[in-house]
Amino acid sequence: MEASEAYRSTTRLLERFSAVGADPEGGVTRLLYDAAWREAQRMVAGLMREAGLAVSVDEVGNVYGRLAGTDGAASSVLTGSHIDTVRRGGRYDGALGIAAAIAALSRLKREYGPPRRTLEAVSFCEEEGSRFPLAYWGSGHVTGGKRFDGSLDAVDSNGISLRAAMLEAGFDPEAGRLSRRSDIGAFAELHIEQGEVLERERCDIGIVDAIFGQRRYFVDVEGRAGHAGTTPMAIRADALAAAAEMIVWLRQAAVAAGDGLVATVGMLDAMPNVANVIPGKVRFSLDVRHRDEDALQAFCERTFAAFGDIADRNGVKASLTCWLAERPSPMDAKLQAEIARICADKGYSCRGIGSGAGHDAGLFAAVCRTAMIFVPSRGGISHAPEEDTAPEQLECGTDVLTGLLYALAYGEEEL
Amino acid sequence: MEASEAYRSTTRLLERFSAVGADPEGGVTRLLYDAAWREAQRMVAGLMREAGLAVSVDEVGNVYGRLAGTDGAASSVLTGSHIDTVRRGGRYDGALGIAAAIAALSRLKREYGPPRRTLEAVSFCEEEGSRFPLAYWGSGHVTGGKRFDGSLDAVDSNGISLRAAMLEAGFDPEAGRLSRRSDIGAFAELHIEQGEVLERERCDIGIVDAIFGQRRYFVDVEGRAGHAGTTPMAIRADALAAAAEMIVWLRQAAVAAGDGLVATVGMLDAMPNVANVIPGKVRFSLDVRHRDEDALQAFCERTFAAFGDIADRNGVKASLTCWLAERPSPMDAKLQAEIARICADKGYSCRGIGSGAGHDAGLFAAVCRTAMIFVPSRGGISHAPEEDTAPEQLECGTDVLTGLLYALAYGEEEL
Repeated sequence: MEASEAYRSTTRLLERFSAVGADPEGGVTRLLYDAAWREAQRMVAGLMREAGLAVSVDEVGNVYGRLAGTDGAASSVLTGSHIDTVRRGGRYDGALGIAAAIAALSRLKREYGPPRRTLEAVSFCEEEGSRFPLAYWGSGHVTGGKRFDGSLDAVDSNGISLRAAMLEAGFDPEAGRLSRRSDIGAFAELHIEQGEVLERERCDIGIVDAIFGQRRYFVDVEGRAGHAGTTPMAIRADALAAAAEMIVWLRQAAVAAGDGLVATVGMLDAMPNVANVIPGKVRFSLDVRHRDEDALQAFCERTFAAFGDIADRNGVKASLTCWLAERPSPMDAKLQAEIARICADKGYSCRGIGSGAGHDAGLFAAVCRTAMIFVPSRGGISHAPEEDTAPEQLECGTDVLTGLLYALAYGEEEL
Repeated sequence: MEASEAYRSTTRLLERFSAVGADPEGGVTRLLYDAAWREAQRMVAGLMREAGLAVSVDEVGNVYGRLAGTDGAASSVLTGSHIDTVRRGGRYDGALGIAAAIAALSRLKREYGPPRRTLEAVSFCEEEGSRFPLAYWGSGHVTGGKRFDGSLDAVDSNGISLRAAMLEAGFDPEAGRLSRRSDIGAFAELHIEQGEVLERERCDIGIVDAIFGQRRYFVDVEGRAGHAGTTPMAIRADALAAAAEMIVWLRQAAVAAGDGLVATVGMLDAMPNVANVIPGKVRFSLDVRHRDEDALQAFCERTFAAFGDIADRNGVKASLTCWLAERPSPMDAKLQAEIARICADKGYSCRGIGSGAGHDAGLFAAVCRTAMIFVPSRGGISHAPEEDTAPEQLECGTDVLTGLLYALAYGEEEL
């Protein structure tokens, strides 16, 4: 393969992308509208053009590469992911879906010519929420599935507003709503799993059945500080001992719930956090995710009730503050079956899998047929320089995505 | 009472002391050899002189006020506590024992004249360890019960060495060993309880049966960090969930052990301490105290075994580092009975009590008959500006101390 034909290989495309925003100490940092981001979107546009796609950039900076369909009345099939990263993130999260989209469309064009439905590759401008306190700035605008009221005034860690960042990158901050699309009939996204399920099972392909809903809370436990030596066990109101009971309960309940539910306490701060003082206050985070909204809600309610009981038994007070609530997004059943059929045809192993992480596909699930395909992540690592997926796994995912796009855009079926 | 006779009242003496090192935002700060400390020891010496005591200052800055006995061959009876405080500490911790010593000796002198045994009040230079990383600098030198090898090179938070601090305060850093005493026959210390037992039981006097031994450890739990959304419960190695199980076990075991044993996790740091990442590492402190060395040792061994089991079950590693180990110090049984007799005579309610906090008396227990008397602490609060004990409780404690010193120094019994 010649250097000028990088667009034919997902692996080669990812090598190109990962050079943009590369941190000298490892990892890749591309934050919405910053210099590395602008360079990356220019590179994406250039490679789309090389692949024979018609390029356009929308009002918030999403880059599209279009392969026009023969049926002008049919809705479009869209595929892609996000170009932004977390700080010192990996090479694959987001970028894989864009690279595979370009490689797949270039292959379909070469092998089958123009599709019936218009096929589009997309590089969404933002998904991670790593520069401004908002996420899905790209797919949220395209689908209309996010409310961004007041977001233009949000500031990054340097005090630069989103409005100023857009102006500096050449975008009109007031024009975001024009990027809304209503002509998308299907969306497909290839992504790394960000977990270890596929690797542990030596499975090539994960067919996502749902992007989990998630709730995040702060739990504040208020007890009574005291001298570790002079306060008898019986009269303590130890906020950390109570919090520990809650954490133990949570894990047992999550394991018992099964069905893929995950519940995590990732952050815990004790006060005053001194060896010889009984903690008077503890704040910890609670993150619960599941594929089913009702089950998620029921689990959270059981958790609140259990935490209340534990607090009462310990003579402490517990209060909860919800700071994030996202509903689950089921993936299209017909497309899941189609992906399974493609894997069987091509001899790839596959399994159904839930996505505990959020993705652009979650927003599309509300407006069109949506599919999501996972490839393995080595060691389950993501959002870190060590993120890794082998070239043959990247190409396998691209092959399955290509098959799905063929079925969607070249077939005669309605969406 | 005239202003010039403050030495007659513990309450009045404490008012004087608390003005030295008073923080404008509340609390008292007197750190070893600092300006407030020097002013306080000068004030103590002056008030001792006013009370008719012969004042001397030893090589490390302990201040003695002596009431010479008629029996030159008899050992001395010593009473007092420490003048230093924690940063923004209370008015009573340490200072009460000095004030009560001066008030008691002045009263005994007035009422009974010279004692048979020499009676001495002492203001120890240091006990808290709040300026340099050492404690019992005063009583440790007097009793020879502490090894201070290399301590002169210890530095405070401003980088000033203990050697330099001693020189600045007018002491010879190399002469500390000369402050050792071998003529002490008995030691008595009045102190606030620093707990809520006496207040809850509306009890006037606590007769300390032992100063608890204590062990302090760091427990390091090492699991595997992971994405809170994409790592199924079954394959997690969650360091915080494992630590929580250990904390719950510890509390249950300490309650079950009874007999006054206290076990505390006061400090816990989780890493990376982010809501959506499973904690890969946790370090927490473990503080265990009990009146009996064998029982303390046995409890710690059971704890290590249990923590090991919990770690194994959770697929994490746990390691322990011991950074403090002090043996229990039983108080003299005969003196406990004498204090109980005095309380009965005077109509004060009393009870036996263990001291979960360390005290100067703990060092004397190894070298002479030693007694410790507690008065209530409001709300059990200590080491804070809110430390509080009512004047009548202060005077009640002083009265009991006076009775004990009378029995020890004016009686004919051998020690």
